Amino acid sequence: MTDSPRRAPVTRAGATPAGRRRLRRALAAAAVDLFVAKGYEATTVDEIAAAAGVGRRTFFRYFDAKDDVLFANHDEIVAEMEDAFAVADPDRDPVETACATVSLVLDSYAAELDVSLKRFTLTRTVPSLRDKEVATVDRYQRVLARYLRARFAEQGDQAASLRADVAAAAIAAANNHVLRRWLRSGGQDDISATAAEAFALVVDAFRPANEAAETTVVAVMTTSTPLHAVIAKVNAALTEK
Amino acid sequence: MTDSPRRAPVTRAGATPAGRRRLRRALAAAAVDLFVAKGYEATTVDEIAAAAGVGRRTFFRYFDAKDDVLFANHDEIVAEMEDAFAVADPDRDPVETACATVSLVLDSYAAELDVSLKRFTLTRTVPSLRDKEVATVDRYQRVLARYLRARFAEQGDQAASLRADVAAAAIAAANNHVLRRWLRSGGQDDISATAAEAFALVVDAFRPANEAAETTVVAVMTTSTPLHAVIAKVNAALTEK
Repeated sequence: MTDSPRRAPVTRAGATPAGRRRLRRALAAAAVDLFVAKGYEATTVDEIAAAAGVGRRTFFRYFDAKDDVLFANHDEIVAEMEDAFAVADPDRDPVETACATVSLVLDSYAAELDVSLKRFTLTRTVPSLRDKEVATVDRYQRVLARYLRARFAEQGDQAASLRADVAAAAIAAANNHVLRRWLRSGGQDDISATAAEAFALVVDAFRPANEAAETTVVAVMTTSTPLHAVIAKVNAALTEK
Repeated sequence: MTDSPRRAPVTRAGATPAGRRRLRRALAAAAVDLFVAKGYEATTVDEIAAAAGVGRRTFFRYFDAKDDVLFANHDEIVAEMEDAFAVADPDRDPVETACATVSLVLDSYAAELDVSLKRFTLTRTVPSLRDKEVATVDRYQRVLARYLRARFAEQGDQAASLRADVAAAAIAAANNHVLRRWLRSGGQDDISATAAEAFALVVDAFRPANEAAETTVVAVMTTSTPLHAVIAKVNAALTEK
């Protein structure tokens, strides 16, 4: 986490995957600065390319359009999420796994605080960028839903598809809530604490019914039982599963 | 509910609020037909206006752009939702109220099955229209969140804002799930039954904690208690609150 990402030199940066990522980020950072300084509509692709030290054609090797540049690393994040799901612990609660995975989005925002804050301002003031952001969230929400659907179906849930869609939306909303709150604080809030609270709410809401109910323990004993034996018996009953 | 909405004559239809609504719908229906027949990109505003029997300038009195026409009645639905929330029973569970209110969206889709089915095909095949639809959902989701936030705060929920965002997303996702399933069935499925199941899942997930836990009843009695007295005692314990 750093609030002033190092801008790598972009010359011939596109030669390697890492160089391509750097160039994408340099274009994104230049675009955000220009959008904030001149306004989104008034900024041209030529200006963005020039500010990143490349030509217009290079810009279009990386992005389809001006509004794509604002969510430059979205494809990367979605790919990371897919990788995380592929190696996830199959014994863990699927909703917990999905929450842990979606926090990759939080990490990526936190890693580029300066760009994230400027983008936050832009999405609140330019309706078309807001719509673009919403579409971006919808895309990773669908990745979450696909994972959850498969896991719920394995668990024999007859309504796996419905439950997965609803839980995925809840997880994405919790993630966005945390993100917006953190950005409103200028990146100063403790994002991990807010995230833990938000994801706990979602995990509780979608906990399988049999785990949600507390088990009641009834201890039966005579009045002559010594206190230490009562405590031992109650403790054993409370800790056994 | 009808699968072939009557197309009212549009001449001078804009003179009254009802006439304006009819004209909006006529433009929307004409646009959807053209988008399906010729493709979205290839259809011009002039063609849409001509097909509805009006001029280009009239089109732009009703819509800002070509892609707005596909979600022509969205503003109406959002206004109806706001009205419904204003008169909602304050003693009803807020999540239940929100589910009942969002079903206005289902009603509006069901009332224009032909347009709804064509729009469904378009949003699945034209990415920019899919994004537009997602943005539309986001807008009513925010109306739901605002209502829930106020109600949860009244109930003293310290995390009202988080809970409202998450529940609103879950409700919108349940609604979309029902809608997509119904549209995939060509409007043949029983939409009310699917909606009831989907909203029950959401209401259960966000039920206040004190209602979610079952109360365990422990009946203590001696072996000499007659069966009818046991039954009466157990029944009394199970039904008291």
